[in-house]
Amino acid sequence: MRIVDIRETVVPIKSGIRNAYIDFSQMTVSVLALVTDVVRQDKPVVGFGFNSNGRYAPSGLLRDRFVPRLKSADPETLVDESGENLDPMRIWDVVMRNEKPGGHGERSVAVGVLDMAVWDAVAKIAGVPLFRLLADRFRGGVFDDKVFVYAAGGYYYPEKDLSALQNEMRGYLDLGYSVVKMKIGGAPLSEDLRRIEAVLKILKSSDQLAVDANGRFDLENAIAYARALAPYRLRWFEEPGDPLDFELQARVVNHYAGAMATGENLFSMQDARNLIRYAQVRPDRDILQFDCALSYGLVEYLRILGMLKDYGWSPIRCIPHGGHQMSLNIAAGLGLGGNESYPGVFQPFGGFADGIPVKDGYVKLPEIPGIGFEAKGELFLVMKALTEN
Amino acid sequence: MRIVDIRETVVPIKSGIRNAYIDFSQMTVSVLALVTDVVRQDKPVVGFGFNSNGRYAPSGLLRDRFVPRLKSADPETLVDESGENLDPMRIWDVVMRNEKPGGHGERSVAVGVLDMAVWDAVAKIAGVPLFRLLADRFRGGVFDDKVFVYAAGGYYYPEKDLSALQNEMRGYLDLGYSVVKMKIGGAPLSEDLRRIEAVLKILKSSDQLAVDANGRFDLENAIAYARALAPYRLRWFEEPGDPLDFELQARVVNHYAGAMATGENLFSMQDARNLIRYAQVRPDRDILQFDCALSYGLVEYLRILGMLKDYGWSPIRCIPHGGHQMSLNIAAGLGLGGNESYPGVFQPFGGFADGIPVKDGYVKLPEIPGIGFEAKGELFLVMKALTEN
Repeated sequence: MRIVDIRETVVPIKSGIRNAYIDFSQMTVSVLALVTDVVRQDKPVVGFGFNSNGRYAPSGLLRDRFVPRLKSADPETLVDESGENLDPMRIWDVVMRNEKPGGHGERSVAVGVLDMAVWDAVAKIAGVPLFRLLADRFRGGVFDDKVFVYAAGGYYYPEKDLSALQNEMRGYLDLGYSVVKMKIGGAPLSEDLRRIEAVLKILKSSDQLAVDANGRFDLENAIAYARALAPYRLRWFEEPGDPLDFELQARVVNHYAGAMATGENLFSMQDARNLIRYAQVRPDRDILQFDCALSYGLVEYLRILGMLKDYGWSPIRCIPHGGHQMSLNIAAGLGLGGNESYPGVFQPFGGFADGIPVKDGYVKLPEIPGIGFEAKGELFLVMKALTEN
Repeated sequence: MRIVDIRETVVPIKSGIRNAYIDFSQMTVSVLALVTDVVRQDKPVVGFGFNSNGRYAPSGLLRDRFVPRLKSADPETLVDESGENLDPMRIWDVVMRNEKPGGHGERSVAVGVLDMAVWDAVAKIAGVPLFRLLADRFRGGVFDDKVFVYAAGGYYYPEKDLSALQNEMRGYLDLGYSVVKMKIGGAPLSEDLRRIEAVLKILKSSDQLAVDANGRFDLENAIAYARALAPYRLRWFEEPGDPLDFELQARVVNHYAGAMATGENLFSMQDARNLIRYAQVRPDRDILQFDCALSYGLVEYLRILGMLKDYGWSPIRCIPHGGHQMSLNIAAGLGLGGNESYPGVFQPFGGFADGIPVKDGYVKLPEIPGIGFEAKGELFLVMKALTEN
């Protein structure tokens, strides 16, 4: 078998939202189709991939380096021992050839897009949903038939008032979510506390609410927020400071006994390992949010899970950033603690299969081969267009 | 004043060399011209920039994000208080708008290219060499009139034998260099030791030779090399392991009392700070090789120097990677310990002004406005072509 074509396009995911750090009005996504010569149900198998939100489409890197390397590789170096399916690890080695160590950003997104398309194709060729394939290969066949998902929102819309915020959060509960997350750090502490209290009023318990500072705070502010937030006993307090300021994270922990979450802006095993080594994160409560679609894909994510095991962490502590179906499959197949979700935003990339509602905070996966994009209509329209000319 | 045009092109720097990690045969460089409406000597001032070797041309990122952001900015937000020159710090803030924290790779190269062109223009508009401008702004006017440079070479050419390696190194001494550097880690330890001993035979003292493993070793191998290299008392032992594996670095130090060098693959203040915090690097002997042209430019490099000062490090411990004139100006103007040089390779980007020979291991800078590209004929031909159509 071989790859016969690789196509890529850039799609805007315009949105009026902003978090404490950036606005998303210019955000773009690369969508990639990896066309194989394998036929299933009378059609060639095509794997699809895209990048997660928060980083821009890695289009230039894909076109200049990674796609040409993959296209020029000997097809025999890309397949597994049977010769009948692609081998994601061997493909990873091919696309990362002649790349120096360190500097894990942007290219990690490009490789993440390619890797997603590869795994989609691999599961489609195997004729199984990706979560089953992962469970079979890496977890003795055990998979979770539903995944915990939480609704990330509570952005700072222009002129948003407290009742609008409450209505937004009520909407998530109505959709079946049990845990919601809101942004903090885009307003003074006192205003953020008012926003938090407004949301708590519509929830049954405070562990239904997580808060996310998106790396905005310096040490002083991070500690001020930690002290002010601690009494609320929230689900978690996410990314108080710069994602690489492990000392800040370690010092905030002294003022915050509850769960903290971080990792969405660390894009390699090496960066993830430094978090574990230096940031005083706690394997009994903290949440790790590494997102494979920004971080060299599932091949690297497997290395991260291996590293975590070495350091005594369970995969259940991982709840990836991004709200996409790739991480949903990884969560179900490899036993992660859940997955993020952005109901209604980052469309059509955010969210899961059509017709499978979230229930009591959990969602099931469709029983179709691959990652499940074909069960998400609006998204699949974008993907299908790539294969139609 | 305002920027009237920004042009970019990609130039290959093909080379038969390889280090322990990658080969350079596909390496590319972005060259950028920033055209202003300021006239000096009857011509519009143009600032030039390019990226350092080891990472690829960041052309897609420049075209998709950073150049459009700069072009669309209000010109008044880009100039200093006089309104008569560009302000590199304000420009940096504009081009980094809507970029999330973390993930410091690739985009750090794109911004490094732009930043170099900005500083070249700023010094040309001021009518002084960049090193004098930096000394005036940041060092009370004190500058070094010559900079220590060392010749980096000793790559693994195909079928290179020991006499060829000795001849290469003799060539560097003949050019006026007093310190040379060779690659290790691309061959078994015993062969590398033979190569080292062959080079030491043509040197007067062992502190004229540094060795560079380019991040290749795991912990076991790094310690094996450290133990084997220690008795030679070389100038330094560079980058034994992965650039982000600070624990490896910290453990190797226990087996190596001599100077170590690292940092060329860390591309932000935050990454550099983690090296200082966690890698047990020693401010009395170790060498820091952060390269501004890969790391968000001089604006970020100033932040790195500020951070180093906070941690008790002198700028004299910095000897940047890259062998380009930008770091040479920074070294002379801000009092760094020296600069790398690659005689004969990475042309026309490597090396310094024509007609100023290296003498006893030091080189002077030309007294022309800007970074000095106009005094480097082959390089300036490439740059000038960008402004001629």
